[in-house]
Amino acid sequence: MALFSSLTPVFVAILCVIIVFLFRSSSSRKIRSKEKSSAVGKVRPWVDEDLQDDTEINSKDNEDEDDWLDTGEEELHHVPYSPPRYSAAEMLKRSEKFYSLMNLRRSVRFISPEPVPKEVIDNVIRTAGTAPSGAHTEPWTFVVVSDVDLKHKIREIVEEEEEINYKQRMGDKWVHDLKRLRTNWVKEYLDIAPYLILIFKQTYGVLPNGKKKTHYYNEISVSISCGILLAALQNVGLVTVTTTPLNCGPQLRSLLQRPANEKLLMLLPVGYPASDAKVPDLERKDLNDIMVSV
Amino acid sequence: MALFSSLTPVFVAILCVIIVFLFRSSSSRKIRSKEKSSAVGKVRPWVDEDLQDDTEINSKDNEDEDDWLDTGEEELHHVPYSPPRYSAAEMLKRSEKFYSLMNLRRSVRFISPEPVPKEVIDNVIRTAGTAPSGAHTEPWTFVVVSDVDLKHKIREIVEEEEEINYKQRMGDKWVHDLKRLRTNWVKEYLDIAPYLILIFKQTYGVLPNGKKKTHYYNEISVSISCGILLAALQNVGLVTVTTTPLNCGPQLRSLLQRPANEKLLMLLPVGYPASDAKVPDLERKDLNDIMVSV
Repeated sequence: MALFSSLTPVFVAILCVIIVFLFRSSSSRKIRSKEKSSAVGKVRPWVDEDLQDDTEINSKDNEDEDDWLDTGEEELHHVPYSPPRYSAAEMLKRSEKFYSLMNLRRSVRFISPEPVPKEVIDNVIRTAGTAPSGAHTEPWTFVVVSDVDLKHKIREIVEEEEEINYKQRMGDKWVHDLKRLRTNWVKEYLDIAPYLILIFKQTYGVLPNGKKKTHYYNEISVSISCGILLAALQNVGLVTVTTTPLNCGPQLRSLLQRPANEKLLMLLPVGYPASDAKVPDLERKDLNDIMVSV
Repeated sequence: MALFSSLTPVFVAILCVIIVFLFRSSSSRKIRSKEKSSAVGKVRPWVDEDLQDDTEINSKDNEDEDDWLDTGEEELHHVPYSPPRYSAAEMLKRSEKFYSLMNLRRSVRFISPEPVPKEVIDNVIRTAGTAPSGAHTEPWTFVVVSDVDLKHKIREIVEEEEEINYKQRMGDKWVHDLKRLRTNWVKEYLDIAPYLILIFKQTYGVLPNGKKKTHYYNEISVSISCGILLAALQNVGLVTVTTTPLNCGPQLRSLLQRPANEKLLMLLPVGYPASDAKVPDLERKDLNDIMVSV
């Protein structure tokens, strides 16, 4: 009994240690998972929250062979490739002509409501679809919106979020950097432009049998495709402005009934320029400021 | 004394709780910071380690007003904009012609050593420089390498890292997905192609006075620019393959003496196709599989 009594402090101490240990590890786990999900968001407020969340395929998922596709495809047949070849003089002329055309491209926020032939838009999207992609996954969906009500709903969603971005999320620096471009959260062009092209990146692919397929480098691939799309628009005399509506992804995805693997990357209002369209008097960097030859 | 003795278990207990509390919080802090830095890397092995590290401007840095640029630029003058306008029939014809040209583009790994006029490459880079970018930051550097020794050094760096990627980093799935394209870590084209274009994204800008400038959406902007570059190459009959050499960034940046704010995003070997060039017999998705019209 004396022994037991003298051991009491020890028992109490051990009990307390166990209790504190359990309490601390459960609470630190909570903190950690919370930090992990918001860490990137805090560092780069201009990166869309929807694009940050980790619904992309990760290594752990890949280990679960039942859920993931074993493509099982044979090695592809290879075929000779001989594209058109031009003389040096022709090449130079073509390169100058294409540069002159592309150099006329500007981001235009004043778009005419005049209708644009849908066949032209179809061809522009077809052209965007010729872009290369990681392991030829073609991880893009182009949603072309011409419905008046739908365009207005998109405008409401975008303006509501953009106002929060400008007033709260982005900070004075962003607002200041854009002020000189006369950019703000009012986006009339979303009602006026005959077409809105919403470009979604597919963070993974879903095959007809429901299995999932890794989409390597999907954001880079879709952005490259967007570059080719911009070239195709410029080639037919249509204008746009490349916008990345911050944090509108989930609402727009839901409005347009897109699946969970698709994340909004860009929104392009497309049409002829308004007759009174103006653009900021910007200059582009000289070749020597963007190219190093060694 | 009796009171003191009966309180001993309580003192011991409190002391133990304090010790365990301090120990747990310091060790969990260590674990957390370790997890934070490696979390992204583990999830997506195909994302370049160099592109993951956080040398981009973050909110904390932005608060230090001494280090960061206050652009102080006036609101830009706005000018009327009226690009060329084509009739509906012309637009349709132009859109078809451009689609046909771009649809002939393929990623080509068999490049001819024949020389290519440098003026053409200059115009192609000029064209890439017409891409839009977040807040008009133009966050790109195109390093055009024609020096034989430098090309060979680049090949050595890329092949060494790519072999590790294929054998260790990427896992069987990646190797399997690429096998059918007959892609591996031997990159002869890096020696043979007359030009290698290395595309760096500038994660922040450095002004003549040494102050730094935020580069919003720099990766998306540079990828869009790469899309326009691919269109410009295709337009003059040159071929390339869009590669993203994994984890070669720091070595290549050092070899090419690029500053710390520049991260390698893509490497394009450029030239005429070899006379015996072959490409995998791939098909592209139909328009209906990439476009939704509402």
